Amino acid sequence: MKQFWSERIKNLVPYTPGEQPKDRVFIKLNTNENPYPPSPKVIAAIENAAGEGLRLYPDPEATALRQAIADYHGLKPEQVFCGNGSDEVLGLCFYAFFTPGKKVVFPDITYSFYPVYTELFGLDYEEIPLNEDFSLPVDQFLGGNGGVVICNPNAPTGRTLPLADIRRILDANPDVVVLVDEAYADFGAQSAVDLINEYPNLVVVCTMSKSRSLAGMRIGYALGNADLIAGVNCVKNSFNSYPLDRLALAAGEAAIRDVEYFEQTRRNIMRTRDNTIVRLKELGFCVQDSNANFIFITHPDKSGQELQQGLRDRGVLVRWFNKPRIDRYLRVSIGTDEDMEKMCAACEDILKG
Amino acid sequence: MKQFWSERIKNLVPYTPGEQPKDRVFIKLNTNENPYPPSPKVIAAIENAAGEGLRLYPDPEATALRQAIADYHGLKPEQVFCGNGSDEVLGLCFYAFFTPGKKVVFPDITYSFYPVYTELFGLDYEEIPLNEDFSLPVDQFLGGNGGVVICNPNAPTGRTLPLADIRRILDANPDVVVLVDEAYADFGAQSAVDLINEYPNLVVVCTMSKSRSLAGMRIGYALGNADLIAGVNCVKNSFNSYPLDRLALAAGEAAIRDVEYFEQTRRNIMRTRDNTIVRLKELGFCVQDSNANFIFITHPDKSGQELQQGLRDRGVLVRWFNKPRIDRYLRVSIGTDEDMEKMCAACEDILKG
Repeated sequence: MKQFWSERIKNLVPYTPGEQPKDRVFIKLNTNENPYPPSPKVIAAIENAAGEGLRLYPDPEATALRQAIADYHGLKPEQVFCGNGSDEVLGLCFYAFFTPGKKVVFPDITYSFYPVYTELFGLDYEEIPLNEDFSLPVDQFLGGNGGVVICNPNAPTGRTLPLADIRRILDANPDVVVLVDEAYADFGAQSAVDLINEYPNLVVVCTMSKSRSLAGMRIGYALGNADLIAGVNCVKNSFNSYPLDRLALAAGEAAIRDVEYFEQTRRNIMRTRDNTIVRLKELGFCVQDSNANFIFITHPDKSGQELQQGLRDRGVLVRWFNKPRIDRYLRVSIGTDEDMEKMCAACEDILKG
Repeated sequence: MKQFWSERIKNLVPYTPGEQPKDRVFIKLNTNENPYPPSPKVIAAIENAAGEGLRLYPDPEATALRQAIADYHGLKPEQVFCGNGSDEVLGLCFYAFFTPGKKVVFPDITYSFYPVYTELFGLDYEEIPLNEDFSLPVDQFLGGNGGVVICNPNAPTGRTLPLADIRRILDANPDVVVLVDEAYADFGAQSAVDLINEYPNLVVVCTMSKSRSLAGMRIGYALGNADLIAGVNCVKNSFNSYPLDRLALAAGEAAIRDVEYFEQTRRNIMRTRDNTIVRLKELGFCVQDSNANFIFITHPDKSGQELQQGLRDRGVLVRWFNKPRIDRYLRVSIGTDEDMEKMCAACEDILKG
């Protein structure tokens, strides 16, 4: 019964997040979470902030967190916007930069939240098909658009677009915003952040959910020229003044300042990923190149759904997308060495059957 | 430079939250925060949740928190929606229930975020003038609208609309949503929550920022019939799957379950409010009746701005709105007895000058 719903939401199909199981303990490789806990300094910062001060509103400008992020990336605080996870940041950017009637473009196989934002906000868009090998047809992203959105490394394929191609797209679209979603860039991709002072039309979106082990704290941010960041702020301040609570602000600042812990855990994940790829190839899997904390795999002998169900039966959750072109694939997040050994053993067991 | 901004945000004027001073310690009576710390059980719940689990996404459905809120209000979990503070909840409700081209109505003097949401989302609206004494002209809210929004008790006046009048408005607007914002209702107003099972067009929005001492944690919720709540969920799930982080979910659940602490602190605030009103009247102030954790006051001898500045000079922050009809008034949050004694003494001092 949608009697009281606004006309513009009656046909919306929301995004479906990966399962968060409540009843049973799984090896959880389905939502690209980090297998390592947050830095001990993050926990200490939260404990320090968890007191009487919670009766007061947070800093609506996230001043200290933005300064820490600016320091880390070699930018100015006015080039940093912080929001409630990179999903909220992306949503606010879509609203801030894209105008109805002007077509936003992104690949057909990419983060499935992008078409949801465009539907929610009544934006026109076109999904440009990736090449057969899931590489991006760069020529089709050059000009004539209302905006460009690129996830790099791409999800769920894990493939990376070289910075030279990002440059080509930026050069060819000087009048519209090019949004580069780098949720997974810390796992081996070259970041476009270095191009921010060169391109006034570039926005890079990052998250602390993956490489900072803080999916549970909802911290995302956008980087770009100060005029662009002012636009996102304008939307955010017309919607919710304080999207980050006091504990998230404290946690985010501690996380970004603990460079040593970050470097160590992301190195572990990259090493585990590379070892897992070798093992899966031995089992006959075809594995996409990955610069992310997940891999995208397929096997000639089993369908994606069979593999997903077989893994679930053996206590391992992975993500399968029931979508054209990728329905024989699984997206598998990188856990600990032990997690991945169990995952590979379960695959071996399924393939015997 | 708004070169890259979407056409629809180029003329937006965002909401301005009250000042959060960083440099100096004030008696902070400017943002309706609670002077008492959160319940000790809330702090314990946060400490308990602040561990390895933060690497995992929160429950996108806020199941445990919604159950606790449903239990408290005598509703079902599917009648409860949780979001990032009542500001986000209000914004999502405006998007979910109001359709462009159909006029939403609310008073001219009320929470100043309402016209910001309508501007942000391209909604038509009309601000209906309150009567001279700041009471609501109920007859002008009966029918013919695209939606009704009422803050009860109203901000910044503190005045309460009787439930019989809310009923009249609900009866006269059977085809549109009537949104009742009860951010302050815990301080002595009659809640419309009891009408939810009777009216399929009623949404009540609540917050933990005021009566639960959790402004710093960003927890708000909406209550209404399950079809309405499904509409808000549809928008939320098309924008940000997880607006509440793991610590906010834990804090909110502990806060709503600690009824004893809630009753004790809100009673303290109501008692302090009533004593403060007596004292200010002795000083010649005109004070609006209040069922909120703030009072709305004016003095014949001083302008609102003079009083605000005088109080600031004496270490007390209050809120002054530079707006027609209320620019001789101050909105003063209720602090502890000691805070209010100092505030009254500062007023006395200003009036001598």
